[in-house]
Amino acid sequence: MIDRRSFLAALAAAPLARAADVPLVNGARLRDHTERLAEFGRPSGGTFADGVSRVAYSDSDVAGRRYVMGLMDAAGLKPQIDAAGNISARRPGSDESLAPVLFGSHIDSVPNGGNFDGDLGSLAAIETVQTLNEHRIATRRPLEVVIWTNEEGVAFNNGLAGSRAAAGHLDPGELDTVWNGATKRDALRKIGGNPEKIAEAVRAKGSFHCYLELHIEQGGTLERDGIPIGVVEGIVAIDRYDAEIRGFANHAGTTPMPDRKDALVAASYLTIAVNDIVRATPGRQVGTVGQINVTPNAPNVVPGRVVQTIELRDLSAGKIHGLATQIRARAAEIARKTGTEIELKPVAHHDAALATPWVQESIESVCARMGLKTKRLPSGAGHDAQAMATLGPMGMIFVPSVAGISHSPRELTRWEDCANGATVLMRVVLAQAG
Amino acid sequence: MIDRRSFLAALAAAPLARAADVPLVNGARLRDHTERLAEFGRPSGGTFADGVSRVAYSDSDVAGRRYVMGLMDAAGLKPQIDAAGNISARRPGSDESLAPVLFGSHIDSVPNGGNFDGDLGSLAAIETVQTLNEHRIATRRPLEVVIWTNEEGVAFNNGLAGSRAAAGHLDPGELDTVWNGATKRDALRKIGGNPEKIAEAVRAKGSFHCYLELHIEQGGTLERDGIPIGVVEGIVAIDRYDAEIRGFANHAGTTPMPDRKDALVAASYLTIAVNDIVRATPGRQVGTVGQINVTPNAPNVVPGRVVQTIELRDLSAGKIHGLATQIRARAAEIARKTGTEIELKPVAHHDAALATPWVQESIESVCARMGLKTKRLPSGAGHDAQAMATLGPMGMIFVPSVAGISHSPRELTRWEDCANGATVLMRVVLAQAG
Repeated sequence: MIDRRSFLAALAAAPLARAADVPLVNGARLRDHTERLAEFGRPSGGTFADGVSRVAYSDSDVAGRRYVMGLMDAAGLKPQIDAAGNISARRPGSDESLAPVLFGSHIDSVPNGGNFDGDLGSLAAIETVQTLNEHRIATRRPLEVVIWTNEEGVAFNNGLAGSRAAAGHLDPGELDTVWNGATKRDALRKIGGNPEKIAEAVRAKGSFHCYLELHIEQGGTLERDGIPIGVVEGIVAIDRYDAEIRGFANHAGTTPMPDRKDALVAASYLTIAVNDIVRATPGRQVGTVGQINVTPNAPNVVPGRVVQTIELRDLSAGKIHGLATQIRARAAEIARKTGTEIELKPVAHHDAALATPWVQESIESVCARMGLKTKRLPSGAGHDAQAMATLGPMGMIFVPSVAGISHSPRELTRWEDCANGATVLMRVVLAQAG
Repeated sequence: MIDRRSFLAALAAAPLARAADVPLVNGARLRDHTERLAEFGRPSGGTFADGVSRVAYSDSDVAGRRYVMGLMDAAGLKPQIDAAGNISARRPGSDESLAPVLFGSHIDSVPNGGNFDGDLGSLAAIETVQTLNEHRIATRRPLEVVIWTNEEGVAFNNGLAGSRAAAGHLDPGELDTVWNGATKRDALRKIGGNPEKIAEAVRAKGSFHCYLELHIEQGGTLERDGIPIGVVEGIVAIDRYDAEIRGFANHAGTTPMPDRKDALVAASYLTIAVNDIVRATPGRQVGTVGQINVTPNAPNVVPGRVVQTIELRDLSAGKIHGLATQIRARAAEIARKTGTEIELKPVAHHDAALATPWVQESIESVCARMGLKTKRLPSGAGHDAQAMATLGPMGMIFVPSVAGISHSPRELTRWEDCANGATVLMRVVLAQAG
């Protein structure tokens, strides 16, 4: 942590900016940092447009983390790594007795991911501090920048790893899960965490004034409506089921059509049922069959067994529960019709995390003063903000994703939108930190 | 090859059996050989009921081949391995100027396969010779027993390998294909073949009087109808297509339902279309989507690309061509409805191989004399007999598969049906060899 006394003395040497003078962030520097961070995990011989594979705990992740810690240093922050591998740094406030404003995001990516998901919010958080420093703007409340560990959850198939640790929500035995031949304990040590002291990463309820996160929308709503800033209403609830369809595997040449119990035919009816049922209800809910595994999966064998995922998301947990009930009823009909057995097993449930009304209003008020149109919308994707919402007030700022594409090298947010989003973040931080 | 002179001299020492005396095969010995052969490739610690994994060219295959060559030796045959790895042995006839009666099957299996597919026809062929020897029955025509290489085609994804080589139908470059890190040349050498002299394995048209193969039905028709012997009308034509469905992969949480181009939803409609179209036409044709590969196949990503197989089989190539035309038209509608692109690429075509009418009649006549009911039926599965049908007259004898199950450890044919089938084979061999 920066020495508070010397920091305040340095700031005091310059006149404080007045509210009306609150500057814009340096968009060119933010772009430069985004382009430089994109080099860590870039496909060999590729360019920025080829995206990034910076899976948490990988060598690329370690290198990327080192790079952003350097940026934090350059912004006068002294980054620390907590037991859960989260990188954070405090900027003192003039009243250190007040809870800090906490803000940040993550820098890990999915394989073949894009350069904005997480990176933008992380670099904008650092940019916020650097801009405030350059303009000699002090705040009453301390500020704390945080870069969370393994948000995507590609590694260990369990996301929001750092923010859940901070919220005290690690799963039992989670540290002993194995991925790519290593336990999560090993992975944590690799990035400077300390699995033996993981409890020290827990943050107390009320330990921050509010948590703020700037993120790309990852959907196409803002771009389609020509809105530069989205004010997140909350992060949707997610229910995930494994549907197991048991038919009977047999020779595809010798088994007459009427004698078949084809698990893939049944699975196909079920996939269409999920799609139809989710679309038939008004609202913004989504439902997806994204993964399917067929046994034995050979061209000349009638499929005997299929396991497929069904994922449902909406801000209302009750609504997706109702959809699941409809899907279950339809599955029973399909099983009868196809001579198969279908079992739907719940495998994951994530509660919705609603954004705090006064944080949403603070974002809207900043945008109104800047002349930026806003729109409230749910986040269909999960974010570290949902773990923080269990500890205190939370708000998220979305910027448009070109064509709504994310988790892809084609993920793109215009630089102007990045700079707008970062300035909104900085001004909300200032508004909340006083 | 056995020395013809001494063989005939030995047989001549005993009185020739008259036609009415033609014996039954030794069903107990056939069962014993079947149970012993099943040990090669059996899951460790398993029993006969656990089936067999004796994929061609594997160590289990080599051991199984050694076992059946021992049986051939014991039956007075001198097995040879040709350049394509086929094991064969001649029993001289009293008129060596006549073309031999050729009969046999294969002993390779699919992974987790059963103990009857191929094994029965191979061991029944050896049993035929051993029974004739024991009863001192000579034939005018020479007999030739053959065990074909790699019928299943699990190895190198290309079946009927030995019989196609004998028919001169190897694919260009086939010997250089790689499977499990080895080329087919290496694999052939491992089982005693000679890839450099593969052309020597080719048999001339008319080089045999007829080819006969006893095989399990692998379907449930005979058992359901209570018929012990099936007389094969022919082996069906097979057309196989790869359907590539191109949608757009995107985040399953953030992509609203109306904006999706979900390749798996489109693939599901296509799977159901194949099933519906094939069932809507009267006849015994079958159509199967057995294999599906989804990209990226993650629970939280709208599937962007699916490749699935479509396989159509019938004795009439024209009929399955007509079905494919209907499926193609339906695919175009599905593509329009789902915002995807669907392309159907033909990837394999196998001609139908019709059994020779007089061979079918010969089988029926033998069964009639034995009081065994018969039924004509197509073979929905491919067999080495189809390669032999391109060289000369061909016929196949089917015996019932319990519950129609095959390519499974649960594959089963009752021992009584095995013995019946082997006796029918022997008597048709005798009828044709004179």
